[in-house]
Amino acid sequence: MRNLKLEIEYDGTDYCGWQAQTRNKHKKSIQQTLEKTLRKILQEKIRLIASGRTDAGVHALAQVANFKTKSNIALDKLQRALNGLLADDITINKIEEVNLDFHSRFSAKSKVYRYTILNRAYPSALLRNTVYHYSYPLDIRLMQKEARVLLGRHNFTSFQACDKIERDPVRTIKSIKITKAQDKIYIDIEADGFLYNMVRNIVGTLLEIGRGKLAKGSLEKILLAKDRRLAGPAAPAKGLCLIKVKYK
Amino acid sequence: MRNLKLEIEYDGTDYCGWQAQTRNKHKKSIQQTLEKTLRKILQEKIRLIASGRTDAGVHALAQVANFKTKSNIALDKLQRALNGLLADDITINKIEEVNLDFHSRFSAKSKVYRYTILNRAYPSALLRNTVYHYSYPLDIRLMQKEARVLLGRHNFTSFQACDKIERDPVRTIKSIKITKAQDKIYIDIEADGFLYNMVRNIVGTLLEIGRGKLAKGSLEKILLAKDRRLAGPAAPAKGLCLIKVKYK
Repeated sequence: MRNLKLEIEYDGTDYCGWQAQTRNKHKKSIQQTLEKTLRKILQEKIRLIASGRTDAGVHALAQVANFKTKSNIALDKLQRALNGLLADDITINKIEEVNLDFHSRFSAKSKVYRYTILNRAYPSALLRNTVYHYSYPLDIRLMQKEARVLLGRHNFTSFQACDKIERDPVRTIKSIKITKAQDKIYIDIEADGFLYNMVRNIVGTLLEIGRGKLAKGSLEKILLAKDRRLAGPAAPAKGLCLIKVKYK
Repeated sequence: MRNLKLEIEYDGTDYCGWQAQTRNKHKKSIQQTLEKTLRKILQEKIRLIASGRTDAGVHALAQVANFKTKSNIALDKLQRALNGLLADDITINKIEEVNLDFHSRFSAKSKVYRYTILNRAYPSALLRNTVYHYSYPLDIRLMQKEARVLLGRHNFTSFQACDKIERDPVRTIKSIKITKAQDKIYIDIEADGFLYNMVRNIVGTLLEIGRGKLAKGSLEKILLAKDRRLAGPAAPAKGLCLIKVKYK
């Protein structure tokens, strides 16, 4: 038995997310697509374990997933076969053999997400699927200052999706960086784990602060209130990308 | 009568190019799409003049086109109406009124094209429509050194498309820059004008030099030979983007 670890890049635009959705049956999931292709190559039923699910429309530069197999296929051959059979909106950038006890989710130390905002008058034809167009002027310095309260270990109930409540809403944000390059604003968040919709809810709230719709100090109040109704609306999926998963 | 100048961004993936093609009737052209939308808004037949044609699959960050109109519509209203009606793979980034004698092509002083190569083992899911994936190792320094012979005023017959010969194949390349950022290589070329397929033929030849398939000094020999059969194959359209058109 071998345990193989994949590093996967995908454009989430045409998928219902990492996992199959009962409410979104007309779109494929990334996981199903990969498992089907692996089965075709390895002639064996494959169960992929990802570092975490990504939602419909969310992208990944380096999602990590592993699976167990009896096959002794050479890794470069498997990578070529996968990239040859998969549609061009999924790429396998790396395959390596890992210890049998490696688990993409449980072994992960932290994950890094990037949210990209295009801050100008009109949307961009070339970036339409990978950035969130936001035309209101934004006070980046205020957003950077406010965001600092999120650093460290907190109960993030206020930023979790209303319909998917987790038993333990405590997570540790290791870093949050807001940078501007021309008309693009990047919000990079590294945490030991994320609640469902957590990044998008944080970004949605930061945007309302940057725009002046929420007052200074709002982020701290919302965080401490542990009440989802106070945070801003979730920012759209297409601006979100899973950049990196870190392991010990 | 007013003369209006548009700055247009487009993702060329789903178009047959700027101009309608008799041999590619199942795809729309950018020009037709824009003229139809302008006609709908202005209730007037519109004839758009672009800085130059772009081929099927070629993108633009800032194509320039102008048209004459009797309408006295406010420019911000026209821009909102255009962006509202156009599909999201075309964006009008700027509209301004210009002198009646302004002509997008004849008034242009120079144009800048960027060609983007993704130089790594496998293609990228996220960049699949906007870069050319090239997996062979490339000697960037050699490419930079060789490219210098193209600077200045030359007869570029060797780099023009076989099927579209221009009467005057002399053009002036004002600058050619080859830069690398991680696994991406950018080839930026500014010239007073370009022959049909000129950038793609130059890039195709530079890639063969960088890969070692053509010897050092080849570019100069090919340029001086004025023979299209000597140059490398045209690099694919999707890596090419019209970045800027400069006017006096």
